[in-house]
Amino acid sequence: MDKNVLLTIEYDGTRFSGWQRQPEARTVQGVIEQMLSDLAGHKVTVDGVSRTDAGVHAKDQKALLKDDIRIPAENLAKVMNDRLQGRPESRSENDDIRIVRVEEVPADFNVRHDVAGKTYRYSIRNADTMPVFDRNYRYLVRQPLDLERMRAAAEYVIGTHDFSCFQAAGGEPGKTAVRTVKSLRITEETLGQGEGRDIYIDVTGDGFLYNMVRIITGTLVEAGLGKREPEDLKRIIESGDRQEAGHTAPPQGLCLVKVYYDGEGFPDM
Amino acid sequence: MDKNVLLTIEYDGTRFSGWQRQPEARTVQGVIEQMLSDLAGHKVTVDGVSRTDAGVHAKDQKALLKDDIRIPAENLAKVMNDRLQGRPESRSENDDIRIVRVEEVPADFNVRHDVAGKTYRYSIRNADTMPVFDRNYRYLVRQPLDLERMRAAAEYVIGTHDFSCFQAAGGEPGKTAVRTVKSLRITEETLGQGEGRDIYIDVTGDGFLYNMVRIITGTLVEAGLGKREPEDLKRIIESGDRQEAGHTAPPQGLCLVKVYYDGEGFPDM
Repeated sequence: MDKNVLLTIEYDGTRFSGWQRQPEARTVQGVIEQMLSDLAGHKVTVDGVSRTDAGVHAKDQKALLKDDIRIPAENLAKVMNDRLQGRPESRSENDDIRIVRVEEVPADFNVRHDVAGKTYRYSIRNADTMPVFDRNYRYLVRQPLDLERMRAAAEYVIGTHDFSCFQAAGGEPGKTAVRTVKSLRITEETLGQGEGRDIYIDVTGDGFLYNMVRIITGTLVEAGLGKREPEDLKRIIESGDRQEAGHTAPPQGLCLVKVYYDGEGFPDM
Repeated sequence: MDKNVLLTIEYDGTRFSGWQRQPEARTVQGVIEQMLSDLAGHKVTVDGVSRTDAGVHAKDQKALLKDDIRIPAENLAKVMNDRLQGRPESRSENDDIRIVRVEEVPADFNVRHDVAGKTYRYSIRNADTMPVFDRNYRYLVRQPLDLERMRAAAEYVIGTHDFSCFQAAGGEPGKTAVRTVKSLRITEETLGQGEGRDIYIDVTGDGFLYNMVRIITGTLVEAGLGKREPEDLKRIIESGDRQEAGHTAPPQGLCLVKVYYDGEGFPDM
């Protein structure tokens, strides 16, 4: 009998060509499916909630496994992590994926349609230089950013809009681009002397278009640099034109930090 | 006319086969020498202070450049970083090295012999699991470590001793193994709920044998796990026998954090 098992997955996107399975590239879905197929002795697939791009990270990716692989759910996280992580003393090729949690879900659970919303965090280093240890997890912006301007611009993004202006080519044309951004918070953390600061953009919404958070970030950065006025955001969104919006911030600053299922505390507004 | 230029270098050791130049492997010295040779139009070499192993990191590696590459010292860091780092929007192959500082030094400056001492930090994650984002920078120890036992064991290491017991094969046999460990501090930082803690072992000494900090760490971990008594350290050091000491902790937990030249605040004890 098939079981429905929901995997919570964390990964460092640096060395992956994104989430989605591809014939010739190393992807998170591909590595997990191969590992589960090896365990089960037959071909196993999983269905993920977010198709993160190359270089994008996740702390709370969700994927549904509908297959009887004959390993009890309560042991599955350990079995999978032993395969992925190897032993602490040695290093494993796939130690950039970790299974955080495994839980059984009802037979009618739909990993994508049952999602109430997601939160992405985009991390910016606003400093002269980037320490090498942070380079895979931050977007370096050297010029000073005005956070008040960024926050003022962000106000126009919050709410229910057609967000076509923030959708990259390669999305799903013809489908609605109407989404609701429930909250968009911009916070900062001052670092040591001469090291500048980190700026975090936390965006929570009921759904996101292709590259939406990265284009929002690029546009807010341009507002923070004084290249755009905060109130320009109103016109940009109304235009529905990708050309009107700012640049696409690079992938390494982005992380999927939370996926909300119904009744799991998705914020009402 | 040749100039003497001292480079301060930071690197993420994960993707390097260590510091030292090798014909067929990617090393920090090799990448820097190739980059400087391209800049100068002739073969340029640099002389480093510490030959870190594969996977070992540095925030304060020092290397001497004795060559007229016709770039003023005050511009050299920027020129080198532009080559290494690339632009923030794209990623560069060599962005795991950063030149922190460039300074002219007297003609008689000796990058190795003038060193008063160094500090290494070894970082342990004492937790059930390792988040993927920390995997290249921590040694995961799952069983609880008793810090008081580790600190009691560390007391025997401090001071001037023949440290042959903490020297890996591949060191320099026949040379003296007498070194002075000026300080050895063990501190901890509690992480979020369920994430365990980080334990830092900071070792400052006038010089270090091959793998010395990693073998000291492995031995202190065994004391912290109750596999050895703290007072065993006295006997282990007196034995001069590598077989008596503990395991070699893995490379990714180790970082060269400070190199002291004369008069630069190397701690007297």
